Amino acid sequence: MPNKNMPNGRNAYGKRNSGKRYITYRKAPYKKPQPPKVQENVRIAFLGGMNEIGKNMTLYQYKNDMFIVDCGLAFPNADLPGVDLVIPDFTYVENNVDKLRGIIITHGHEDHIGGLAYLLKRVNVPIYATKLTIGLIKGKLEEHNLLGKVKLVEIKPRDNITLGEFNIEMIHVNHSIPDAVGLAIKCGAGVIIQTGDFKIDTTPVDGDMIDLNRFADYGRRGVLALLSDSTNAERPGYTLSEKSVGESFEKLFRMAKNKRIVVATFASNIHRVQQIIDVAESRNRKVAVLGRSLENLVNVGSELGYLNVPEGILIDINMIRNYPDEKLVLITTGSQGEPMSALTKMAFGEHKKVNLTPNDYVIISATPIPGNEKMVGNVVNELMKRGVDVIYENMYEVHVSGHACQEELKLMMGIVKPKFFIPAHGEQKHLQKHADLARAMGIENENIYVADNGDLIELNEDSLRKVKTVESGEIYVDGIGVGDVGNIVISDRKKLSKDGIIIVVATFDSATGYAVSGPDIVSRGFVYVRENEDLMNEARDLASQVIDECSDGKYHDWNYIKTKLRDELSKLMYDRTKRSPMILPILMEI
Amino acid sequence: MPNKNMPNGRNAYGKRNSGKRYITYRKAPYKKPQPPKVQENVRIAFLGGMNEIGKNMTLYQYKNDMFIVDCGLAFPNADLPGVDLVIPDFTYVENNVDKLRGIIITHGHEDHIGGLAYLLKRVNVPIYATKLTIGLIKGKLEEHNLLGKVKLVEIKPRDNITLGEFNIEMIHVNHSIPDAVGLAIKCGAGVIIQTGDFKIDTTPVDGDMIDLNRFADYGRRGVLALLSDSTNAERPGYTLSEKSVGESFEKLFRMAKNKRIVVATFASNIHRVQQIIDVAESRNRKVAVLGRSLENLVNVGSELGYLNVPEGILIDINMIRNYPDEKLVLITTGSQGEPMSALTKMAFGEHKKVNLTPNDYVIISATPIPGNEKMVGNVVNELMKRGVDVIYENMYEVHVSGHACQEELKLMMGIVKPKFFIPAHGEQKHLQKHADLARAMGIENENIYVADNGDLIELNEDSLRKVKTVESGEIYVDGIGVGDVGNIVISDRKKLSKDGIIIVVATFDSATGYAVSGPDIVSRGFVYVRENEDLMNEARDLASQVIDECSDGKYHDWNYIKTKLRDELSKLMYDRTKRSPMILPILMEI
Repeated sequence: MPNKNMPNGRNAYGKRNSGKRYITYRKAPYKKPQPPKVQENVRIAFLGGMNEIGKNMTLYQYKNDMFIVDCGLAFPNADLPGVDLVIPDFTYVENNVDKLRGIIITHGHEDHIGGLAYLLKRVNVPIYATKLTIGLIKGKLEEHNLLGKVKLVEIKPRDNITLGEFNIEMIHVNHSIPDAVGLAIKCGAGVIIQTGDFKIDTTPVDGDMIDLNRFADYGRRGVLALLSDSTNAERPGYTLSEKSVGESFEKLFRMAKNKRIVVATFASNIHRVQQIIDVAESRNRKVAVLGRSLENLVNVGSELGYLNVPEGILIDINMIRNYPDEKLVLITTGSQGEPMSALTKMAFGEHKKVNLTPNDYVIISATPIPGNEKMVGNVVNELMKRGVDVIYENMYEVHVSGHACQEELKLMMGIVKPKFFIPAHGEQKHLQKHADLARAMGIENENIYVADNGDLIELNEDSLRKVKTVESGEIYVDGIGVGDVGNIVISDRKKLSKDGIIIVVATFDSATGYAVSGPDIVSRGFVYVRENEDLMNEARDLASQVIDECSDGKYHDWNYIKTKLRDELSKLMYDRTKRSPMILPILMEI
Repeated sequence: MPNKNMPNGRNAYGKRNSGKRYITYRKAPYKKPQPPKVQENVRIAFLGGMNEIGKNMTLYQYKNDMFIVDCGLAFPNADLPGVDLVIPDFTYVENNVDKLRGIIITHGHEDHIGGLAYLLKRVNVPIYATKLTIGLIKGKLEEHNLLGKVKLVEIKPRDNITLGEFNIEMIHVNHSIPDAVGLAIKCGAGVIIQTGDFKIDTTPVDGDMIDLNRFADYGRRGVLALLSDSTNAERPGYTLSEKSVGESFEKLFRMAKNKRIVVATFASNIHRVQQIIDVAESRNRKVAVLGRSLENLVNVGSELGYLNVPEGILIDINMIRNYPDEKLVLITTGSQGEPMSALTKMAFGEHKKVNLTPNDYVIISATPIPGNEKMVGNVVNELMKRGVDVIYENMYEVHVSGHACQEELKLMMGIVKPKFFIPAHGEQKHLQKHADLARAMGIENENIYVADNGDLIELNEDSLRKVKTVESGEIYVDGIGVGDVGNIVISDRKKLSKDGIIIVVATFDSATGYAVSGPDIVSRGFVYVRENEDLMNEARDLASQVIDECSDGKYHDWNYIKTKLRDELSKLMYDRTKRSPMILPILMEI
């Protein structure tokens, strides 16, 4: 049946001949299809999201048309001091801007939309996304002064859009943010399914279960490749329904009795917030929201109809003093123990508007993202020192993941039945485990490709091969600087943080070549100077000696003196303290 | 029956009247004892190990006698850049050195012995510890050139030692290192049980189960207070026996088939190493050891008879090339993903002697300590990128804890039956959970004391109360410096690591007050200077302007100029980059 959404006359599966099957499973051996028409390969470039959880970005090319799926950011780890965000390298996109037809965003999480504003400053193409995702992108664009300068196209699940030679259908999936979609990417080379982030929630809060039927339709007709979410590939079983968290809230809100309830959660989890509001309402409590990102979510979510806030239940944080504790629920950011978040400030007694007491009942509705365990633990400890009840364990199901576990991942493979399988969205251990699952499902080893960022692969019905490596590094954003902090600056910062800096300054008379002032020694981050005057004097004497030796009036080779100062002072400092501060000689001339 | 080990004529329970009972449990309400003789209180000062896992140190005082239990170190978290170790503050000990009779060490882990050498440099008193612990302490003293200068007294479980008014019995416990003891501390005020780190292993590798009978003896006769290990107070159930790990090794060594096996484990876990050696022997593989601390443990352990190494099984790491992969087991450090460890170097292809290939089978026999999850994850990812098989999940029981879980903790309380309960060795959340367990066991809330470092408490049969707070801070060890790095230096290091440093240098003529050289701008860790020349020129111009305005030849107030330079340049930099580098003006005079 022709699909009226398909202006180029293709059927819903993007092919004129949709009878091909790629089923390669047990008992149904892969049948080589009829000799294919001569057709070009489809190319996929992984610009982010492989070997990492963050900055997802995938680029598809068929003939002369390209489009991008997602453009996220990654949060820097402790190895990148001072860096605010990490975004993908856009060089390959910029070099192919003439072919670029658009960007599709699967959902509104930072690791899928956070790099978009930076990309749009370099290439201006239309953005396609669902309603809520568009709403969240608008916020980003506003921050970057790009609103109105970019074409935003709202799409719905089961919509098909055409980008040059490509036709792409949006398929509804469940995730920890509403309005997430997977993609069926259709071109002359075949159909590629990219799940995006997903889980299978049979009882989602909004009643809208993942559109497994549509995935199955494609699977029945033949899918060339599946790119699937690997985040939870290490976890056996099924991810619980978001509804189970609501049930826990009901139990916990009863257990809190007359205490004030504080719930910390991810700012983007609208369904979680909805469930908190619902339970608060049923127990006759008012709700106040803390933290800029949560306030923003509640605004966007209610405006667009994703959050149903009963009249009068939401109160301003400044009004909480007018209500007794047992009539209040505070929803707050900080579930990951982030240093500047509202919950952390409350825990350390530094929040201007909320003072926690033993009459508070705190629920941390999240599990720590790897790397955040210590920070979350610190917040729990500080809360407990205030006598606050803290619910942070798994015992009450106060959190469920937004990503599919092993059984769901296998189910997805089982209905999509791809010829080629590419685990996506994960660190190496997740990708490898997901590949293991694919093998267990009967996908042949040579049809599984564990990709790295920068890989550009080419595939058709017969083969998948890596063609080349394209630019795909990490670009650091620090303040408003994009890419002006790189490896040298980072390695200097690390060195500075380890043992500090010692600066040696001296002024020379350019006429005579003799030092006329200094050397002075100034240090920061090295030792308590007052308690180490002897060492500092020794350093000054040594610097004097070096300068005297080197600048005998006949020559003054700056580089030689500087190197000599660095070497000699490094040696002295290591000898006396077993530390290696950065030594920075500054020589001036009059 | 008089105990010949008790020179002061007391019975084994340190009291002349041992008939008192403090049982406060369900159905057996606490009976007020006979009017007690007038007796002094016993004092306990917590100098480390409360609200932290690390640097354990407890001080007991009765009348004019004091002794210390343990003197550990803590490993700094990311909040203390450049700091190598953290040790307790010894001020209170030094101020009371005339009363100090000795130091008892419960076992040889770093968080119990790592501060000892630093303490002994300040107060020289005898050390009491079991054989293996003494062996490990000797290594520490040697490093610090203290060997032979300190009296080391070897003790055995069930030995009693007298330190002034105190008599202390050592009680054998199970832990992740052999030869660990708990203490029964007896004085005129009563008996205090300090468990030390423990678990209840009914089938330990050396066959020597925790001496529960002895704890029960004391419980039967009346215990004033129990200080118990809280590390695993959050974990329900029982900690598995160390033997279960051996069984997993047998299974995994079979699964490894012809591959070379690499096992990473904690360097101090002699029983784990023993089990690896045993399974290696049974499968006819040679064993090589990597990493200095493991080599040291194998040496000390075999010398003292704690490790049974069959003749010819151990080979030098340089000899592994002479054996095929299927004949080798490598035991390595690095189970926590430590950056400089052998396993991390192997994972990143930087180890000089071992090159991992897809023919390697790596078992990480540990779980990440909170805060290390990310580092361990990185190592797993890198290993997998080399095609190595990595066993790192819980599915095979490749690791068990050395600390008691909830059922064991409750059992300990149930047999010791203390009047007062003090959870020890844990962060706030562990201490609080342990206190919850005590309440569940029927210990009255007012008899439970959750202590903080620095608390000095006083107790007797009737009461436990905090007397005062004593010095108990964190002393940072950086290189050979002890305490010369403090909060100011650390906060400078953090600032430096975040946005780097900008140095402004100028030289003034002291006669005229005018600048004769500079200002020069030098930066490190801020931006790529070459790509930001405009900004640097702007900074120089601004600095010139400030200096010109301030030093008009009539006055030159250094502090004023410096402050002005700092303010103006900070503003400029924040405005242009949204960053806040440290601004350091250096003004010189000729």
